[in-house]
Amino acid sequence: MTPITFDSQRRLSIQSAIDEADFDILICTLPSNVMLSGYWPMIGTAIAVFGRDGKLGLIAPEDELEFIGDSLADFIFSFSAPKLDNLCSPTDVLQVPLKSAIESLGIRQNARVGVESAAWSQPAPYVSLYSYGSELRSIVHNLFPQFMVAEADETLNLLRSIKTAKEIDRIRLACRVAGQAFHSGARLIEQGMTEMHASLLFRSALLEGGIESGESVRTEAFAFCMSGENSVKAQRAYAQSGRRRLEPGDPALVHCNSHINGYWTDITRTFTPGSPTDRLRKMYTTVLAARDAALQAIRPGRIAKDVDLAARSVILDAGYGNDEFAHGTGHGVGFAAIYANALPRIHPLSTDIIEEGMVFNIEPAIYIPGYAGVRHCDMVAVTESGAELLTNFQSTTEELFIERTGR
Amino acid sequence: MTPITFDSQRRLSIQSAIDEADFDILICTLPSNVMLSGYWPMIGTAIAVFGRDGKLGLIAPEDELEFIGDSLADFIFSFSAPKLDNLCSPTDVLQVPLKSAIESLGIRQNARVGVESAAWSQPAPYVSLYSYGSELRSIVHNLFPQFMVAEADETLNLLRSIKTAKEIDRIRLACRVAGQAFHSGARLIEQGMTEMHASLLFRSALLEGGIESGESVRTEAFAFCMSGENSVKAQRAYAQSGRRRLEPGDPALVHCNSHINGYWTDITRTFTPGSPTDRLRKMYTTVLAARDAALQAIRPGRIAKDVDLAARSVILDAGYGNDEFAHGTGHGVGFAAIYANALPRIHPLSTDIIEEGMVFNIEPAIYIPGYAGVRHCDMVAVTESGAELLTNFQSTTEELFIERTGR
Repeated sequence: MTPITFDSQRRLSIQSAIDEADFDILICTLPSNVMLSGYWPMIGTAIAVFGRDGKLGLIAPEDELEFIGDSLADFIFSFSAPKLDNLCSPTDVLQVPLKSAIESLGIRQNARVGVESAAWSQPAPYVSLYSYGSELRSIVHNLFPQFMVAEADETLNLLRSIKTAKEIDRIRLACRVAGQAFHSGARLIEQGMTEMHASLLFRSALLEGGIESGESVRTEAFAFCMSGENSVKAQRAYAQSGRRRLEPGDPALVHCNSHINGYWTDITRTFTPGSPTDRLRKMYTTVLAARDAALQAIRPGRIAKDVDLAARSVILDAGYGNDEFAHGTGHGVGFAAIYANALPRIHPLSTDIIEEGMVFNIEPAIYIPGYAGVRHCDMVAVTESGAELLTNFQSTTEELFIERTGR
Repeated sequence: MTPITFDSQRRLSIQSAIDEADFDILICTLPSNVMLSGYWPMIGTAIAVFGRDGKLGLIAPEDELEFIGDSLADFIFSFSAPKLDNLCSPTDVLQVPLKSAIESLGIRQNARVGVESAAWSQPAPYVSLYSYGSELRSIVHNLFPQFMVAEADETLNLLRSIKTAKEIDRIRLACRVAGQAFHSGARLIEQGMTEMHASLLFRSALLEGGIESGESVRTEAFAFCMSGENSVKAQRAYAQSGRRRLEPGDPALVHCNSHINGYWTDITRTFTPGSPTDRLRKMYTTVLAARDAALQAIRPGRIAKDVDLAARSVILDAGYGNDEFAHGTGHGVGFAAIYANALPRIHPLSTDIIEEGMVFNIEPAIYIPGYAGVRHCDMVAVTESGAELLTNFQSTTEELFIERTGR
């Protein structure tokens, strides 16, 4: 894994969040929270323990030590997965190293301990995800009955929402690789191929590009293609490729979520092979204009709903209805992939404040049931004075209308 | 999604498990448990409510109604994801339909309610997975304070371990598609290509084969290739493809986890392009003999550790050590993909009893650090008198040694 050099900005932000929440310790098990340490667990059994003084302990399976690399960890307690000599669960194995890690932080009796409590959504770092569920809370209680346990979800949501310069660097890399993959996919996508086949052109390019982007890179990619009337289904909470074949003049909406070393992208482009009708053309120009308006509206201090309004006004003014753009304009991304409640929520009702270092997507869209859906989803990082576009590719109808004959 | 016709065997097994545990209701939110209803949730917000009389209620997001198809559901309460008019979480949206679903079961005051409590591992049905965590327990308590809540994990683990005839049919299909994909991948794998590129040959074939296997199929596939010395890393709790290039005479261990409509595979084949050395050849013949011994040892009533011993003895007798085959011989699969604690555990210490209808993998292996790893992972379904091999392909050295020159 490309080493993450010491990230003093992140250490400070964690320390300050812990101070503000008045925790003595903050214990995380969800991969997207452990990720704040610079290490993204693979199977979900690792734990991060942040102390009030900025010290960080990681408890990780031996198998994953190579991913810890140059993380923020001040000390690491490893444990081996059960092998032949016992048949217990990761939860059983965890107790001793967790106790050691907490004691290493030198915390006092009656410490106030922040733990994850609320419902969550996050990308699985591997085929399967392990979760301690409520067992962690019981373990902590059994090991240290005198501790006062408090909910840390709000603290963690805010911590994840603002990325450090080094983290934005990593997300920038993931977006650059995605840009190359979208170019490569767009060169090969053709009428006549199935949605699944089209999606694989992008997915393979994302994975091969990812693995070539550095030494010992860890990467995964999902890509979906929804074409013709199916493109309307992209407004659902999930995307899916089917076996419908791409037809000339039909939109092919391609959505990807990919990561490099745990830093996720969330990107959509809608391609149309052949010649789009005027009706479809108008959808494109409206969506792209909405996107420009949103990008212009982003700056630190802005209320998130104003960014949504900037995009939404363009779409409504062009004669479309809110029911044709029935989701928010964006949401936080980077540690999360596709969770609409990740901060900041770029939504008509959101009073989240845009801050420098936030990374989110801008995904204006128009979905007309029975006809077509056009969505354009970019990623941005908030700068001192505006927004850096992290996905600066295929943003014109010239690039999205693909003139090519079938096979 | 290919409809699952009414599965009376499953309804009976759930009813009998609920009786035995003395629950009035069993509430599940984890996708692999909701799957017992024949519906595999997509983003993780759906809930299944099983009643004592065999009645089943599903609470599902509108977006996912098409997947419920011909499930066991007697009644369905759908909810819409928050759109523009509110900015709340799935947990908030859930309360009303959950209350209605529980009331529809006609349960009594002071009902005993089984809920998921323990740690868990499971394949993510989509890019991201939503989990209610401990919030569900609070919601149930707030809605029905008089209910007695009990842990249902053991009941659910057992229920998942024995598949019905219809479920085995679905798993058989997933294995058949995987067999075709492994044939297709083996024809194209060549020395000189990167592990990632090799893995994509299999992954793409799994996905294209999956989507062609029926109408409106839902499918996902992970495939990994670890070559040369990297193949030893396959003994870790996870697999990973890198950018090492396949070399002649080096093993290329290909591992896949794929699903069709939520029924998962767990399969490994080790290919060697070019001519293997005698040392590597002996590893192959030993692993394949261990596999045969394990397959012969499977029958209902057998203790799982005896199946492990059958395979392990062959490996030890050939002069290899337990440290060179340091994991169990298998674990349950089908609703789970790669969780070593899924029942039955085919492990030296496991007293799990093999029962008809169980589906698990048999994955004997030899890993020699610094040299090579050879693993052969099959899937079996336990029959009345033995085992049905679900992955009856590429089981000889003739098929696994690939004679082909580089590009």
